[in-house]
Amino acid sequence: MEKAGIYHRPESEFAYLYEKDLMHLRLRTKAADVASVQLIHGDPYLFEVDHWYNQQTPMKPVAHTSLYDYWEIEVTAPHRRLAYAFYLKGVDGEEVFYGDQGIFLTPNETRKDSATYFRMPYFQEEDRVKTPDWVKKTVWYQIFPERFANGDKENDPVNTLPWGSKQHPEVADFYGGDLKGIIDHLDYLEHLGVNGLYLCPVFEAKSNHKYDTTDYYQIDSAFGDKKLFKQLIDEAHQRGMRVMLDAVFNHIGYDSPQWQDVLAFGKESKYYDWFYIHQWPVETDKVNNYEGSTTIAYDTFSFVPNMPKLNTGNPEVAKYLLDIGTYWIQEFDIDGWRLDVANEVDHQFWKKFYQATTELKPDIYLLGEIWHSSQNWLNGDEFHAVMNYAYTKAIQDCFIYQKISVEKMIDSIYEQLMLYRKQTNEVMFNLLDSHDTPRLLTICNEDKDLAKQVLTFMFMQPGAPCIYYGTEIGLTGHGDPDCRKCMIWEEKAQDLELFSFMQQLIDLRKTYADLLSQGSIQLQASKDNPQLVILERVWQEKRLVAYFNISSHEYFLPNSEELTQQLWEFKTLIEATGLTIQPKGFVIWLDEGKTVSGNNG
Amino acid sequence: MEKAGIYHRPESEFAYLYEKDLMHLRLRTKAADVASVQLIHGDPYLFEVDHWYNQQTPMKPVAHTSLYDYWEIEVTAPHRRLAYAFYLKGVDGEEVFYGDQGIFLTPNETRKDSATYFRMPYFQEEDRVKTPDWVKKTVWYQIFPERFANGDKENDPVNTLPWGSKQHPEVADFYGGDLKGIIDHLDYLEHLGVNGLYLCPVFEAKSNHKYDTTDYYQIDSAFGDKKLFKQLIDEAHQRGMRVMLDAVFNHIGYDSPQWQDVLAFGKESKYYDWFYIHQWPVETDKVNNYEGSTTIAYDTFSFVPNMPKLNTGNPEVAKYLLDIGTYWIQEFDIDGWRLDVANEVDHQFWKKFYQATTELKPDIYLLGEIWHSSQNWLNGDEFHAVMNYAYTKAIQDCFIYQKISVEKMIDSIYEQLMLYRKQTNEVMFNLLDSHDTPRLLTICNEDKDLAKQVLTFMFMQPGAPCIYYGTEIGLTGHGDPDCRKCMIWEEKAQDLELFSFMQQLIDLRKTYADLLSQGSIQLQASKDNPQLVILERVWQEKRLVAYFNISSHEYFLPNSEELTQQLWEFKTLIEATGLTIQPKGFVIWLDEGKTVSGNNG
Repeated sequence: MEKAGIYHRPESEFAYLYEKDLMHLRLRTKAADVASVQLIHGDPYLFEVDHWYNQQTPMKPVAHTSLYDYWEIEVTAPHRRLAYAFYLKGVDGEEVFYGDQGIFLTPNETRKDSATYFRMPYFQEEDRVKTPDWVKKTVWYQIFPERFANGDKENDPVNTLPWGSKQHPEVADFYGGDLKGIIDHLDYLEHLGVNGLYLCPVFEAKSNHKYDTTDYYQIDSAFGDKKLFKQLIDEAHQRGMRVMLDAVFNHIGYDSPQWQDVLAFGKESKYYDWFYIHQWPVETDKVNNYEGSTTIAYDTFSFVPNMPKLNTGNPEVAKYLLDIGTYWIQEFDIDGWRLDVANEVDHQFWKKFYQATTELKPDIYLLGEIWHSSQNWLNGDEFHAVMNYAYTKAIQDCFIYQKISVEKMIDSIYEQLMLYRKQTNEVMFNLLDSHDTPRLLTICNEDKDLAKQVLTFMFMQPGAPCIYYGTEIGLTGHGDPDCRKCMIWEEKAQDLELFSFMQQLIDLRKTYADLLSQGSIQLQASKDNPQLVILERVWQEKRLVAYFNISSHEYFLPNSEELTQQLWEFKTLIEATGLTIQPKGFVIWLDEGKTVSGNNG
Repeated sequence: MEKAGIYHRPESEFAYLYEKDLMHLRLRTKAADVASVQLIHGDPYLFEVDHWYNQQTPMKPVAHTSLYDYWEIEVTAPHRRLAYAFYLKGVDGEEVFYGDQGIFLTPNETRKDSATYFRMPYFQEEDRVKTPDWVKKTVWYQIFPERFANGDKENDPVNTLPWGSKQHPEVADFYGGDLKGIIDHLDYLEHLGVNGLYLCPVFEAKSNHKYDTTDYYQIDSAFGDKKLFKQLIDEAHQRGMRVMLDAVFNHIGYDSPQWQDVLAFGKESKYYDWFYIHQWPVETDKVNNYEGSTTIAYDTFSFVPNMPKLNTGNPEVAKYLLDIGTYWIQEFDIDGWRLDVANEVDHQFWKKFYQATTELKPDIYLLGEIWHSSQNWLNGDEFHAVMNYAYTKAIQDCFIYQKISVEKMIDSIYEQLMLYRKQTNEVMFNLLDSHDTPRLLTICNEDKDLAKQVLTFMFMQPGAPCIYYGTEIGLTGHGDPDCRKCMIWEEKAQDLELFSFMQQLIDLRKTYADLLSQGSIQLQASKDNPQLVILERVWQEKRLVAYFNISSHEYFLPNSEELTQQLWEFKTLIEATGLTIQPKGFVIWLDEGKTVSGNNG
């Protein structure tokens, strides 16, 4: 047995309460190295009383990567205290005990020593990671307000260009998009089927993207006002749509009163300690220092001088931002906060933010913009989820760029899933593009079939999917600013066939929301075609199976007794003896009402 | 290369700020499997600007166990943001890249993909784990007040037995120990050399051990009163001694007004929700349920009916306990809290406790009673340290019980050290016995030489050592209640030779406190005698080397040019050509003022 490959971590994503009094335990072993894992567990204070260390319960393998196998088990504890350890048998026959003091080659002696067990000392409901239930049933739609729709020409900024007048918008362009434009198209969005709106920043700011906030308490006048915003929220809520705002707390706008006060009064400014200032007077050109010199005048987002970084460690700054966080919930009943550059703000601040916002609205959704692995932000007291770029990167690298094999994609997906607790994976924010990336259709080289296939694969994953505005009608665009084109509203210029496809996909996701968010997931490459991805989701009495052909060849699948209740096929020919799945095609089957056995419970 | 053995975890004990702007990174690999590890690192926003991904910096191997090698490096970041990944070369010549998206066999391609790097997004001083500096220089002395000294016979409980009248004290005995007794012996303790007093509970309670608190705001009347307690603190502080109290927040005493109110008024009691009550009326005999039945009347510590568990998730209970936590700091200037059964109280409560107490006294020492691995309590916002039973268990199992080899002990010590950040290891609370275990001298079969050797080995470890009262004069005792014998004060019954040894050991620890708390640590079994433990500590220009002979044979060590400045020898004969270390003997060398090279920086 490869003992160096065995890993567990108490009180982490490897050992956590999923529901009250229901604990999930995971163990990682080297791939194909361990034949069975048994859990030895019981109440720590009954160790010498009922000798539970003589019993064991099998764990199930739930994920296989080329490097690792992952094993899981659900357990309860009558007195809400658990001591546990693992008894492993290698494929080579070796048997070991693994617990809090490491690995022992003498399992039947070591199991009798209570000090060698891992512990979940008490099932604390207070410490359980909780995530909002409604997110599991949500399909998000991301709106970049300046480019979605211009509903009110009265509030257009000076120099507003005619809607969609440039084929490729430039960094400083304005087109007049606003809140009224969104309200006017709520019917459209309802018709599409989405039930969650994620709005990029709407607060007062100079730029078109509004990530350089100047007043967090005002709706930007080019977008509308608070009355209109309240109307947007109310009308969205009436349609069963949730609304999430975007908060930029890592930095503030250059033109904010706080930064301007610092520029005016220097060290005498009461806002001087709101920032990280290294040199006085600050010289803006010394910030934009891409040469890697060690001296910059003040900390900023990246090296962008007009976004001075806020010192959230300063209690005054923290209070100021926390008040903003609660204000928009209290006054406008927003449903979520997407938190910009969340990883560069201190954890202590986010913990306070979580407390303040969830106290006010227990089912608020807190979403961090974090592109890398994020365990430390997802332990139940900061965010509920992150923007899942790391997860979808593997899907893109495989389906679109064909840079990695199906096997490597599956490895990566499982590794991502195993970074987090199940209740976190259920509400992850999955996306294939955004205002910060090239658009899906463009990275697909405008191959709509490929885009449809990738979108469908993403919609079958745990986590709530998000569509970036315009994807549903064929909007294209390279990286920022090209990915921020004006939405196309003339029907004849919209891809209505794609719209119809997206309606169907969104409907499917919402119809099977429980299964697709909470079900187990199995992924594999077909044995006879390594470019065919087989996905299986199982939850209670439902089982969904999907085949995705990402090869350049047709794939013939003979009729089987197992897969009968076909739900949807795309680029697939139905023949008498089976199905021919074309390149970029997929088929989805769904069994309902069956009791499903196997490792998918 | 055994890729399944490679492990890193961002923002954890594997990646943390040690000092402001100084980060420590660790990597784990399979033992003897990897020839070199290089760190690739730089500012994430300069990735495409200065192409730092083409450079790399070697990491140092710092710990070797039979399963793993651990590698470390210290890094800074001019703009306080870090992206990093590892470039490994196997002993078999294979080269891999390891980052946030896993392991890649194509290191020179993958290194060019910025999305594959781990991240320390910003060096947040707010998130850095801080530990009180004074603890590094502290030698603790644990006092069980009822058995240390009877300074005032006026306050003795009814039925107080004559001091030390039973050879083996029984569970319910009282002997009259009190605070005046401690004050009277502060000179004695100063003479011994200890500079930290850890007092078992002193608050009002029925039992002799006082772990069943009835009033957290009162000194138990058999121990004295607040005036006397204030005097104790003041006189200790005048001597440069710190004082730590013991708080029992997991449960409360059966006779507390809160629990009595529940018993009297049931669901009408305003304290009903202060507890976890499953059945009403509560029947005490249904608690003491060792048969593993699933029904108990109310949650308790273990299955002890007179210790009902407090519901710290109830904000009222939390406030009540937090106020106690700050009261004794505010009014009496105590220096630390030892927190009983800390692992069974929820993390949310401890985070509040940390905030409330450190805000009031930034260098307060918060010590959790946790016997197992404790990463989740030691992330900088709950405790500074835990009672390090898990660490010293390995030392006992090797030196005393000879159950495990020196190699296994070293494995275990390194594994424990690698569970925590360096600043945490520096203030761990190391102990070989306590009021909860048999006494050191007794588990050594009253072999004083062995006890001296083990104590010396413990004193050479990172972390502050603690002596359980009486160890220094030869007190013996099996498990509770026998380990709570009355202290011996008649000089002729004290082991004065042992006392003198302990004075010397304490003096050595305090003299070299910086080196012994902060220095690097290397441990190995001698190549020519696997029962000889070689320990090396290096810090700045100091280097300490010690040999401990735990075999049953003499060990001859020829004179060497390297080890010249002998500091202390025990059971060791100095001969012309070298040293003969007898069984249970040790030798300590110390070089000062040298610049030390090697892997010990």
